[in-house]
Amino acid sequence: MDNSKIGQHISERFNQELEDIRNKVLTMGGLVERQIELAVEAYTTGNMELAEQVIKQDNDVDALEVAIDQECTQILALRQPTAFDLRLLIAVIKIIHEIERIGDKAERIAEMAIQLAGNESKIPHHELEHMADLVKGMLHDALDAFARMTLENVPGITSMDEKVDREYDNILRQLITRMMEDPRNITRTLDVLWTVRALERIGDHACYICEHLVYMINGEDVRHLSQEELEKRVKVAR
Amino acid sequence: MDNSKIGQHISERFNQELEDIRNKVLTMGGLVERQIELAVEAYTTGNMELAEQVIKQDNDVDALEVAIDQECTQILALRQPTAFDLRLLIAVIKIIHEIERIGDKAERIAEMAIQLAGNESKIPHHELEHMADLVKGMLHDALDAFARMTLENVPGITSMDEKVDREYDNILRQLITRMMEDPRNITRTLDVLWTVRALERIGDHACYICEHLVYMINGEDVRHLSQEELEKRVKVAR
Repeated sequence: MDNSKIGQHISERFNQELEDIRNKVLTMGGLVERQIELAVEAYTTGNMELAEQVIKQDNDVDALEVAIDQECTQILALRQPTAFDLRLLIAVIKIIHEIERIGDKAERIAEMAIQLAGNESKIPHHELEHMADLVKGMLHDALDAFARMTLENVPGITSMDEKVDREYDNILRQLITRMMEDPRNITRTLDVLWTVRALERIGDHACYICEHLVYMINGEDVRHLSQEELEKRVKVAR
Repeated sequence: MDNSKIGQHISERFNQELEDIRNKVLTMGGLVERQIELAVEAYTTGNMELAEQVIKQDNDVDALEVAIDQECTQILALRQPTAFDLRLLIAVIKIIHEIERIGDKAERIAEMAIQLAGNESKIPHHELEHMADLVKGMLHDALDAFARMTLENVPGITSMDEKVDREYDNILRQLITRMMEDPRNITRTLDVLWTVRALERIGDHACYICEHLVYMINGEDVRHLSQEELEKRVKVAR
């Protein structure tokens, strides 16, 4: 399956509309990928300008969600699509909502960067950056799967989430140890915990995007399935 | 505006379909309200059977979401609705997603009830129960607004969320103090924190339901507006 699915309509105008929505989703996704990157950089470098920028740009993300959502609703009303086109539009409405929530998490990381500014012991940077790389990769791959309308990378993305959860547990244990050793810094350590948790949730939302993609491409609802069951369904569909 | 909006179609069958979806959403909502109640009871009484029941029943919530979602998609394909009916169906798809996430939070509280079983100092029960009452009320009012298709209670629900956030901050401060005083119990205190946080998130999702309702009834997207702006929009529409 490839994106030639878009572009087979008798109405040239309809093709353009769907293509336009696809591009806008990718723009929104790219913006949020960048938001995560900047938020993590703000956190690790203590650059407050970057953090402020992330918080400010969250409005752009929100505005894009509203705009794409409205466009989808309009197309639903005017074109009355069925089959793949209908699933595409419904999936887009759901996917942009996940992207918007990811944007909220990036904003949360930026807020924590500001809270923690000037605190030397706010690390572990290395582990946090590694976890950020993992979830950024998941989001990137999910957006790529949407762009190419293929499911081949979906099982890889969802299994990556298990790795993210393990990293999260690992960092959580370290943070608990630190809180026990230095109870005066519990508030600050909790702020680190919120940051790590925001990253972990980004991974979850990337997985939700994948579930919406499977529904869109296969017409099958795979939400609430185990990793093993998901892999089976995607394999059958290839 | 009242629910007479449903029931004005030439096709008796279409009326029935929309009415059926409305009832299923209310069933799903009622189930999740009960899930919150049981989870909080499991937490405060230490009744593990209740907690297990909540975790098991989350599958029913998930299954209801998938079923209602499919029904909405089918109606979109077959009836090709426009205007209010189209907005109703899109809003339902979004609302059931919020309800499902609320169900996840109830499950999370039940899991924490199990983790914390037998731990005498897992309170503050009183504050937690109060917060649970607030968010249950918010969800109940949001479902009621959906059932009656009226927005009159929406500003009350969203302003209640500010109260919930204050309660959350208040409990968080207490928990931090406790962690400082007794660092050996940090892990358990964090489990209490996850419980309180799950409740706080339920309030957020109840607000998201309200936003979808405003869109459904007014055809206006009020996501990402301030409380003040929201109140203005709802007032104008009454």
